[in-house]
Amino acid sequence: MKHGRNPTEASISENKDMVIWESSQWIAMMDRYPIVEGHALILPKKHVSHITDLDEAQSKSMGDAIRQVSLMLKQTYGQGLLVSIKCGKGSARTISHLHIHLIPRKNGDRLWDGNRSRIVLDRTSGFKRLDVTEDELRSEAKKIRGDL
Amino acid sequence: MKHGRNPTEASISENKDMVIWESSQWIAMMDRYPIVEGHALILPKKHVSHITDLDEAQSKSMGDAIRQVSLMLKQTYGQGLLVSIKCGKGSARTISHLHIHLIPRKNGDRLWDGNRSRIVLDRTSGFKRLDVTEDELRSEAKKIRGDL
Repeated sequence: MKHGRNPTEASISENKDMVIWESSQWIAMMDRYPIVEGHALILPKKHVSHITDLDEAQSKSMGDAIRQVSLMLKQTYGQGLLVSIKCGKGSARTISHLHIHLIPRKNGDRLWDGNRSRIVLDRTSGFKRLDVTEDELRSEAKKIRGDL
Repeated sequence: MKHGRNPTEASISENKDMVIWESSQWIAMMDRYPIVEGHALILPKKHVSHITDLDEAQSKSMGDAIRQVSLMLKQTYGQGLLVSIKCGKGSARTISHLHIHLIPRKNGDRLWDGNRSRIVLDRTSGFKRLDVTEDELRSEAKKIRGDL
């Protein structure tokens, strides 16, 4: 997924095997620049920029999308989880299409620094993403879907 | 709101004037330890620990709760927003009751460090919270509700 394009259209057509879950309104896939193993995104299929612009069908189904994908990640990586959404100017968001980050967490992961946990999701923070290939992301998606 | 107690029960009874929005399933109020001005929490009225434990009524109404409170914050503070949920062991969460942080963001706010944005939501990060009185929080809640 290239940043700056509409991630839904670009990613779905090019990377069907990165998809881990979908419903009529939402689709979930691996983040191309993961902070930790299993870092996934949930995207609305119909373009929305800010969370305040969700229509009724999207609003009603968003909670279940988050719950279902969280459950898949919990079964794969354990119970720790960060859900994060950034919207609008000043939020340090780099794509103007609503996207929900789901980030598996565990004690001692790379977001922990000793006994301090730092959330350095923002790309501007300079925190180094994992260096993964597309093949590795595809096999991660397979693991989450339970296809392995 | 003291951390370690059920924040919904404790806060609603003691701090009705900190409440900014509610529905049959959810209630939103000011965070007692704000990271920035307008930092609010959305809590399920019925106890849930992990997001994967939401029941159907809670799942269906969560998206709208986030959308509505986001809209109030956007009208009060501008469009920048961070929505953040931490669940389960290893996530650096300090209360075992599901809570959704809504944090107004803008360019140059205290989460920006020059041109780097750092999200230091975790209490373990050592990032200093705003020093506010309960009266200040009450008048912040009034402003968001549009009562002023």
